[in-house]
Amino acid sequence: MAYRIGSGIDFHQFAEGRELWIGGVKIPHHKGALGHSDADVLLHAICDALLGALSLGDIGLHFPNTDERFRNIDSKLLLKETMKLVLAKGYKVINVDSTLCLQEPKIKKYVPSMQMAIAGILAVTTDDVSIKATTTEEMGAIGRQEGLMAMATVLLQKI
Amino acid sequence: MAYRIGSGIDFHQFAEGRELWIGGVKIPHHKGALGHSDADVLLHAICDALLGALSLGDIGLHFPNTDERFRNIDSKLLLKETMKLVLAKGYKVINVDSTLCLQEPKIKKYVPSMQMAIAGILAVTTDDVSIKATTTEEMGAIGRQEGLMAMATVLLQKI
Amino acid sequence: MAYRIGSGIDFHQFAEGRELWIGGVKIPHHKGALGHSDADVLLHAICDALLGALSLGDIGLHFPNTDERFRNIDSKLLLKETMKLVLAKGYKVINVDSTLCLQEPKIKKYVPSMQMAIAGILAVTTDDVSIKATTTEEMGAIGRQEGLMAMATVLLQKI
Ligand SMILES: [Zn+2]
Ligand SMILES: [Zn+2]
Ligand SMILES: [Zn+2]
Repeated sequence: MAYRIGSGIDFHQFAEGRELWIGGVKIPHHKGALGHSDADVLLHAICDALLGALSLGDIGLHFPNTDERFRNIDSKLLLKETMKLVLAKGYKVINVDSTLCLQEPKIKKYVPSMQMAIAGILAVTTDDVSIKATTTEEMGAIGRQEGLMAMATVLLQKI
Repeated sequence: MAYRIGSGIDFHQFAEGRELWIGGVKIPHHKGALGHSDADVLLHAICDALLGALSLGDIGLHFPNTDERFRNIDSKLLLKETMKLVLAKGYKVINVDSTLCLQEPKIKKYVPSMQMAIAGILAVTTDDVSIKATTTEEMGAIGRQEGLMAMATVLLQKI
Repeated sequence: MAYRIGSGIDFHQFAEGRELWIGGVKIPHHKGALGHSDADVLLHAICDALLGALSLGDIGLHFPNTDERFRNIDSKLLLKETMKLVLAKGYKVINVDSTLCLQEPKIKKYVPSMQMAIAGILAVTTDDVSIKATTTEEMGAIGRQEGLMAMATVLLQKI
């Protein structure tokens, strides 16, 4: 019955000339997210929550942004590698809850695609992957659309 | 024994000429919180945590800020509606933990009233509803008193 | 089998002429953290998560920053006091996951020492204390190195 919880948070700046990947899905927008990988803020937060639940380090340890292998990499591959580590420890995912903080664009219509992408990798149903969104009510750096943030919490159980 | 976790975060700006509702309680202050509803940042974060634990969408999906029915609405009604969805899924609340981030006013003396308001709606005891508070040490938009933030985590269990 | 979850968040400004204590470890840096105690942002977030899980109030209630007894106090003592309250309620820690948000310095090499310091106090193994780190990608007050933030989530179980 052994449970473990984890939580993750990630930030990326918006930048011209970059693609905007969130939750494994490419979102049409005039700006993208800046980063060494594809800068998928949601997948990174979920990776960190999974790693944290089992005290496996963090995303920067496993996938350093100084490693050419990870340049512009699809973060779904990072989530897959992370999930292998979870399984190797003998745990499964019960549920993931997450929140995106960004002023624009609206992401609601992309949520089902994100859920499918993530659930497939985590070996759960889409009902076990929650993706919520909120603005910061135009406050702070995220409110000024300098970037975006994602937070995730996970519950794991020993298989 | 099935458990689920959820987490929520919400932001509101402070504004002159508005009331300040936090945790279902009206707080005397020279500024209130701006929003379509009563802008109760704590109840919104808890709603989102409950919805997220069961992958039921988010508060913006259920109570859109474009819907006249929700203008200046008492967010306790939104929490009640949210709790109905939790029960309809066959879950109960084990505990809620939350933190308010705001520079002013001090909210400590209002916490017991908030706990009673929330516990009643969630069908738990006040010992199962934790409300903490912190400042951002005068940093950022919240430190400049442009607004306030609340975070909540919930643990649910299958009935 | 009764579980409870808690979450905490804490902020401190950087300041010249102060020591930088994080996770119970002194980190060499040209700036330290400002606060009434030793301003250990990670230990404070963990204290708040433990208190929150059992609805025991918050760190400001138990260790007010107006109390001379806590001036420059080693926050490991605050964590010890908090853990006594957890045990007195009949609970043990299952795991802690945490994230530090700061632009500088790099803290990775200090993480094992932090884990040992915290695990000893919480009566768990170092594998049950996760400490992750991220920057805010130079955004906001933390990105401008005005200060740092820590978040923690905990899972407790009735003994
Ligand atoms: Zn990232
Ligand atoms: Zn709100
Ligand atoms: Zn502190």
